[in-house]
Amino acid sequence: MAGKVFFSVSMSLDGFIAPESMEWLTATAEQRTQDPRLERWMAQWMELQQWVFPTRFFRENLRFGEGGEEGLDNDIARLTFERTGASVMGKRMFDAGEHSWPEDAPFHTPVFVVTHEKRDPWERLGGTRFYFVNDGIESALSQVRDVAGDRDVRIAGGGATILEYVNAGLIDEFSIALSPVLFGTGIRLFEGVDAGRVALEPIRAESSPRVTHLTYAVRER
Amino acid sequence: MAGKVFFSVSMSLDGFIAPESMEWLTATAEQRTQDPRLERWMAQWMELQQWVFPTRFFRENLRFGEGGEEGLDNDIARLTFERTGASVMGKRMFDAGEHSWPEDAPFHTPVFVVTHEKRDPWERLGGTRFYFVNDGIESALSQVRDVAGDRDVRIAGGGATILEYVNAGLIDEFSIALSPVLFGTGIRLFEGVDAGRVALEPIRAESSPRVTHLTYAVRER
Repeated sequence: MAGKVFFSVSMSLDGFIAPESMEWLTATAEQRTQDPRLERWMAQWMELQQWVFPTRFFRENLRFGEGGEEGLDNDIARLTFERTGASVMGKRMFDAGEHSWPEDAPFHTPVFVVTHEKRDPWERLGGTRFYFVNDGIESALSQVRDVAGDRDVRIAGGGATILEYVNAGLIDEFSIALSPVLFGTGIRLFEGVDAGRVALEPIRAESSPRVTHLTYAVRER
Repeated sequence: MAGKVFFSVSMSLDGFIAPESMEWLTATAEQRTQDPRLERWMAQWMELQQWVFPTRFFRENLRFGEGGEEGLDNDIARLTFERTGASVMGKRMFDAGEHSWPEDAPFHTPVFVVTHEKRDPWERLGGTRFYFVNDGIESALSQVRDVAGDRDVRIAGGGATILEYVNAGLIDEFSIALSPVLFGTGIRLFEGVDAGRVALEPIRAESSPRVTHLTYAVRER
């Protein structure tokens, strides 16, 4: 049985899944001090993701060692990881992560990067291997399905790539960790969604003290 | 003890609390047939509010007679009404409603309309009385607090008026009925929010089969 195609993101209550820019990821502390926008973008990201950092799974997966919290947030972070047989990623998310993920990258599965760049597979410690796909999102999905087996396929991000899959009718379900924060500006998850095509069916909603976890199935209208 | 200042709205998962226009409210069936935008705006509104129509409270409050569903959605609709001692409303919401609310308007309390229009109070059946306030949102709030007594003050809408109160730091808490629907376009609740000023604290999150009810307290950052 083929797995599901899903995405899972953290979203601010006003609909943003990332700050305007992720440049802060590769900026030095001095650069951040000189440019208050970098500080703000970093702070926004940290607030958006604040529910995951204290979890035991997050610490384990990044090899931070023992400790961390159990509970709903941890269960969901772990389940999201364990269901994923392989991932698809857009070029912008890959570029932002390439120089900031640890050598032991946190995916531990194959990751297919949709890009115009031709490049040999890039193997990291711990089982993450990036493949570079040059012929579009459907081809990437077909390849990632083949390697995911009966586990699920995660569209990892970023926002533009997720939206392409949504609008192409290729997403089966998705989860949002709705964070109690307002951004005002940034990258909106559903900016440009083909609203006349997508119907949603609520599957689950559960809250921890930090965040509300929402899962929806996607149906054709 | 003075009550809280709150708002309570239904919001699409992509952050919209109303379609681009409410013209469909006063359009004839023939006009709607001739202009597909009117049909779409009406359909969006119905989808956004679909959780409230089947409730016993909704039927009672609009004098539709007996019947309707009990349960979480009904409890929340009723509680939102019962906690409200008086409301503030923006000019645009009033204009949209003036010719479409029944004569026995659904507020059954004083409603202060923030407007440049000078106008005598307008009394409706069933205890709704509209007052027209010409000197801004803080004055309207002060007047509505006086008549609300120890019950809460509701900022009824529309979106622009709610946002003015949010950005002025005058909201204590708010509730969102997050509907499983994507609009793509429309009136965004938090468009233009002063994100650097507003911090949110999650208070409650509960789901019915139709919608997720979220409540947040507003804090100064």
